[in-house]
Amino acid sequence: MLLRTDILSAADGDAVSVENAAAAGEVLLVCEHASRTLPQRAGDLGLSEEALSSHIAWDPGALDIARMLSRSLDATLVAQRFSRLVYDCNRPPESPAAMPEKSEIYDIPGNHDLDVAERYARTAALYVPFHDRIAAIIAERKAAGRRTVLVTVHSFTPVYMGRRREVEVGILHDEDSRLADAMLTAAGPQPSFRVERNEPYGPQDGVTHTLKLHGLSSGLANVMIEVRNDLLKDEAGKQAMASYLTGLLQEGLGRISS
Amino acid sequence: MLLRTDILSAADGDAVSVENAAAAGEVLLVCEHASRTLPQRAGDLGLSEEALSSHIAWDPGALDIARMLSRSLDATLVAQRFSRLVYDCNRPPESPAAMPEKSEIYDIPGNHDLDVAERYARTAALYVPFHDRIAAIIAERKAAGRRTVLVTVHSFTPVYMGRRREVEVGILHDEDSRLADAMLTAAGPQPSFRVERNEPYGPQDGVTHTLKLHGLSSGLANVMIEVRNDLLKDEAGKQAMASYLTGLLQEGLGRISS
Repeated sequence: MLLRTDILSAADGDAVSVENAAAAGEVLLVCEHASRTLPQRAGDLGLSEEALSSHIAWDPGALDIARMLSRSLDATLVAQRFSRLVYDCNRPPESPAAMPEKSEIYDIPGNHDLDVAERYARTAALYVPFHDRIAAIIAERKAAGRRTVLVTVHSFTPVYMGRRREVEVGILHDEDSRLADAMLTAAGPQPSFRVERNEPYGPQDGVTHTLKLHGLSSGLANVMIEVRNDLLKDEAGKQAMASYLTGLLQEGLGRISS
Repeated sequence: MLLRTDILSAADGDAVSVENAAAAGEVLLVCEHASRTLPQRAGDLGLSEEALSSHIAWDPGALDIARMLSRSLDATLVAQRFSRLVYDCNRPPESPAAMPEKSEIYDIPGNHDLDVAERYARTAALYVPFHDRIAAIIAERKAAGRRTVLVTVHSFTPVYMGRRREVEVGILHDEDSRLADAMLTAAGPQPSFRVERNEPYGPQDGVTHTLKLHGLSSGLANVMIEVRNDLLKDEAGKQAMASYLTGLLQEGLGRISS
């Protein structure tokens, strides 16, 4: 056992960060896999430095482009400050993927045979505060008569289980495809990047938890954006992608509000 | 859908009650199924008044004898203020029994096909605050150099699935049987009530969640007491049972501390 009831110590700080809290835009950006930081008390979960810096720990580049979108769209951004290896905030506690024993090709020793106290601690310390904060922000905006559109920002690895992925930008949705449809229309028949619907993941993979929890349950338009992380290796790549996504989102939002 | 993200309204009050908070005794009493109250926003979950007052909604008499034990043992008592029909605080979120679609012979329409937002709301509003409070109390006592022994108090129905149960008092434990063993020894070969180990439920039924979460994870001695609820129909019955259990606990505690 690597963790105890109080998995976040004072030195770790809060589980959640909220940036651009006073933003006036209608988009609320969410980045569940923003960080590869592990709580001090988690140790290294039995993983190598290579694994701890890989896509299994976080979505490389996702927070950077989310911050660019936060500026370009004047949007509040909610990000999880700890690695999904401890708790994947895009999964409910009942999902085996919330505290995975294995991720892609990596075994995660520190997640084997978690007892109820460890599962509880991670859920209570990382999952619940994250989604409570998002729910509170949406409720405040609603009380103030402000519309909210939920946009979650992710990145994916170009090679998964040894297979190369051709898709560059995934526009993902669950049962409410309004914004995704509008963004795909905006992307047009010959987009600048290879853009696909519900690739490389879709709702059948359980990746739409945040969309369902805060978007579908309240009727908010919503979308999940997935960017192939080899396009986010340097500042120029991130800027180009953020600029492209800003255009898709602005045009998509215009289409669904008209 | 019967519930939304904010399932507890201001009129409902807190999920948790703590009684005798300044008690000096080493026992910490927990009553997960103390109440049959439903949050206002839960409606009636599609159940009849008969079902809503039956053992599927709560453990009749359990809070009453827990309060008597709180006095006789000078013990702090933590109780859940809402019915286990909405969230059973003796189950983790990943257990189907946490928000059951069926309980004994009763179908629970309001728990069918719960979406992620409803599951999240119940978990965040009822389960996490309840166990956070217990964990905080144990941590405070530990910081103050005080020992804690965890005792959970339950009642069970005399007839289950049409079968009569002969056992009157169950002494339940998980992997740590220190206190249960001592209480069973104290009960002796011809106890005043029919006392049995891990009856009518045991760890294989998933009923030791609270014991595992707060007792086993921290090495605290712990036991779960189950009393047949037909013995708790009137004040005299409750007094007699509380007095009997006080004796068993005092003798058991004496045996494990010596």
